Amino acid sequence: MNIKNIKLEVSYEGTNFCGFQIQPNQKTVQGEIQRAIKKLTKENIKVISSGRTDAGVHARKAVVNFHIESGIPVEKWTSAINPLLPDDVVITKAEEVPIDFHARFDVKEKVYRYTIYNEKIIDVFSRRYTYHYPYELDVNAMNESSKLFLGKHDFTAFSSLKTDKENKVRMIYESRVWQEENKIIFQISGNGFLYKMVRIITGNLLEIGKLKMSPGDIEYALLEKKQNKYVYTVPAKGLVLWDVKY
Amino acid sequence: MNIKNIKLEVSYEGTNFCGFQIQPNQKTVQGEIQRAIKKLTKENIKVISSGRTDAGVHARKAVVNFHIESGIPVEKWTSAINPLLPDDVVITKAEEVPIDFHARFDVKEKVYRYTIYNEKIIDVFSRRYTYHYPYELDVNAMNESSKLFLGKHDFTAFSSLKTDKENKVRMIYESRVWQEENKIIFQISGNGFLYKMVRIITGNLLEIGKLKMSPGDIEYALLEKKQNKYVYTVPAKGLVLWDVKY
Repeated sequence: MNIKNIKLEVSYEGTNFCGFQIQPNQKTVQGEIQRAIKKLTKENIKVISSGRTDAGVHARKAVVNFHIESGIPVEKWTSAINPLLPDDVVITKAEEVPIDFHARFDVKEKVYRYTIYNEKIIDVFSRRYTYHYPYELDVNAMNESSKLFLGKHDFTAFSSLKTDKENKVRMIYESRVWQEENKIIFQISGNGFLYKMVRIITGNLLEIGKLKMSPGDIEYALLEKKQNKYVYTVPAKGLVLWDVKY
Repeated sequence: MNIKNIKLEVSYEGTNFCGFQIQPNQKTVQGEIQRAIKKLTKENIKVISSGRTDAGVHARKAVVNFHIESGIPVEKWTSAINPLLPDDVVITKAEEVPIDFHARFDVKEKVYRYTIYNEKIIDVFSRRYTYHYPYELDVNAMNESSKLFLGKHDFTAFSSLKTDKENKVRMIYESRVWQEENKIIFQISGNGFLYKMVRIITGNLLEIGKLKMSPGDIEYALLEKKQNKYVYTVPAKGLVLWDVKY
């Protein structure tokens, strides 16, 4: 019996999904991928994913892997599976990987991108992928403050109270804010992220941009390590899992 | 009685509309705008539009106008009407115009843009606004051939048999094809367009890009002026009414 470990790169629009992780009677990305694999191979497979994303969060590149007996050549996987998926999930790449590759445990770095649409009136074509904020923002101040997250920190103050992770220390490699026409983009990369962490950090940077918070507030929160349930969590639809690196 | 002539710039995603023009029991852009105006002003208004678009075609900027007694100050119109519209229609600008301004008769120029997504695998984020073509295209040949449409021509060969217009002569001001990363964009502007004309021209340029047609075929069709029902009409979703000029 010839078992292969298949790694898929997955892109999805989160709008109509109840998140990544499978749940009974809900439309989930994992559920759709597993259903498509079953249609294709008749095998009941549980995929391992690079991580969950919340309801409404998108992915440019998420990763899953699974072990399978099927003899489908790996170069045929994308064209075979995409027609079996709903059109808001697309497999962009398939490859065979060493048998011990694990899409969650082996992650070295994840990159997230949050986009704010900063115009008076919403844009009908990007409304599903951006958060509309119609007032002025100080992009330089946001970028300056984003640097405070670089390096190793305890992110207790920037995670949801609902998190189940004991260890709140994460390493941040990249954190920057820039403007492209009427979009303000925040990109952050790190070795891992706590529940709602990117959306809470973005919410804080938004307050900085409105000049309602100062960089000192962020420095204090990082040192105090106290969960603050009053911190603003920006909407899921502006968030994209941009990349996962191994 | 103080009658005002209000001009609105309208942006919409055509995906879920049965076109612009009102039809009974169908979701149309005109129907939604008129319904919102009625909610806002209690007046039954018929809007005049810069033109119809087909089911599935989008607009970055379409224009409507209407005469109304309502005393709502013109600068309040966008913020008052947008919450009453479904989120795939957005009024981006409102202004009061001279009483004889007519959104259809006064059009000087219309600009359309057709986008082909030219990558092996579809992009989940632009799938609603682009036509996915996964094979190689000769963009230079497409751009060269697009120039053949410039100037005044009888577009009989490039319009749908279903058109109700007697006069098939139109003046084309701009016609060009270029590439932006994995998107191939065709932009055409003119004093008016026949039914399905942009999509039929794009279909022809696509055949040029595949090297299945030659520029001579287009020159011949322009001279022969014979409707050809075998010409390929590209899907509506790649087409955007980009601008309307007065």
